Amino acid sequence: MTWLAERYTLFAPDLRGFGDSDKPAGPFGPDQHAADMLALMDALDLKQAGVVGHDIGGALMQPMVRKAPQRVAGLFFFDFVYPGIGPRMAEPERLNNIWYQSFNQLEMAPSLVGATRESCRTYIGYFLKAWTHRKDAFDDVVEAFTDNFLKPGNLTGGFAHYRAAHEGRIRMMKGEAPQLAPIDVPTCIRWAEHDPLFPFAWTDRLGETFSNLDLALFPGVGHFPHREDPDRAAAEIAAFFARIGWS
Amino acid sequence: MTWLAERYTLFAPDLRGFGDSDKPAGPFGPDQHAADMLALMDALDLKQAGVVGHDIGGALMQPMVRKAPQRVAGLFFFDFVYPGIGPRMAEPERLNNIWYQSFNQLEMAPSLVGATRESCRTYIGYFLKAWTHRKDAFDDVVEAFTDNFLKPGNLTGGFAHYRAAHEGRIRMMKGEAPQLAPIDVPTCIRWAEHDPLFPFAWTDRLGETFSNLDLALFPGVGHFPHREDPDRAAAEIAAFFARIGWS
Repeated sequence: MTWLAERYTLFAPDLRGFGDSDKPAGPFGPDQHAADMLALMDALDLKQAGVVGHDIGGALMQPMVRKAPQRVAGLFFFDFVYPGIGPRMAEPERLNNIWYQSFNQLEMAPSLVGATRESCRTYIGYFLKAWTHRKDAFDDVVEAFTDNFLKPGNLTGGFAHYRAAHEGRIRMMKGEAPQLAPIDVPTCIRWAEHDPLFPFAWTDRLGETFSNLDLALFPGVGHFPHREDPDRAAAEIAAFFARIGWS
Repeated sequence: MTWLAERYTLFAPDLRGFGDSDKPAGPFGPDQHAADMLALMDALDLKQAGVVGHDIGGALMQPMVRKAPQRVAGLFFFDFVYPGIGPRMAEPERLNNIWYQSFNQLEMAPSLVGATRESCRTYIGYFLKAWTHRKDAFDDVVEAFTDNFLKPGNLTGGFAHYRAAHEGRIRMMKGEAPQLAPIDVPTCIRWAEHDPLFPFAWTDRLGETFSNLDLALFPGVGHFPHREDPDRAAAEIAAFFARIGWS
């Protein structure tokens, strides 16, 4: 982000329920987060923005751009969920990758994960190792992540996302996601070569959701391209927004 | 068990890895547990026994009776897993019921669940509430369960079962469980009316696995018939073994 900040004005908002944002009674899912982001653009008096997201960020960018395509100059995604993944997400061999999407919905999840600082570090640290390809990518920030998760309300607020997303996720896994018109805003997707959570093969149906698509593999990284290879991630983002004339 | 103990000589062994049994380096699954039970019968000089099991107990009784049908006078099961459940186990709507089968396999699971006494009570207490129909059935033994799980090695030992069972479970969920000859030892199955984990509808293919089958619904209980209605459970067990002339 340092590199990009020299070229662009950047905003990196914490979603409602997460980080330092408010944590009103949930749950909040992609639709509510999308509405929040558009309200934030209004408050900042931004008529249009280039939008970059990963994973949950990618999930909310889809309803956001459908709701207000004229507000979005371009979409840049790293590995995320879109309807075309479909039943592949829940194939038996994948179950050991998606259990947390169920666990995080449980009332006991925040108290179990937040029981001690070590419990919290163990839990978040597990994902930061299991989902990376460059295994040390988060070693220097695990304590900061733990601090963030342990702020009052953050485990409950963040996990509320999984409750709100549950119904849509089940529909997708049943192959019953609603058929929506393609998004025609310029879209750039860089998908990790070694994402254990969302394999690159699952990019095969992106064209059904994004009609103006520039897709390429992001080599040598796992689920977190922007953290595992930040220089390349920043260069890819800048190159895309330059190509579409957004600066 | 008190009621049955007046009529039968009862043995209620802790499986390897569980309770007060040894906890050698795992993992141990149904096949190893079955071999242990036959070895225990040898050590006790029992030529034949009536076998009663529930859930994991039911899982290991199947390889046990296939290995040594002459040692088993009759099989009595409460709600358990058999191959005919198949892909239904992993249907999208079921995912929030089976996440623990993945979580328990993780290296972090014992340390997260065993972080504090309260963590352990929360975890085991969750299942004892979520899976019962008579919600207070375990209220007076939650502390005893917690004591048991917190004994050195028990979380690791018990969770090792899920690692060992994983491959067979995935095969079943893919509809690729090996086709085995039916078990023809007299079999009685009483399946809970309200089991949220294993719905009664899943009993429809029991006849493919058990050719000499007496199946009936066990009314008014959830996943734990023997705990939620112990008098009826004991009466059903005794009636079955009386019917087949085992005493």
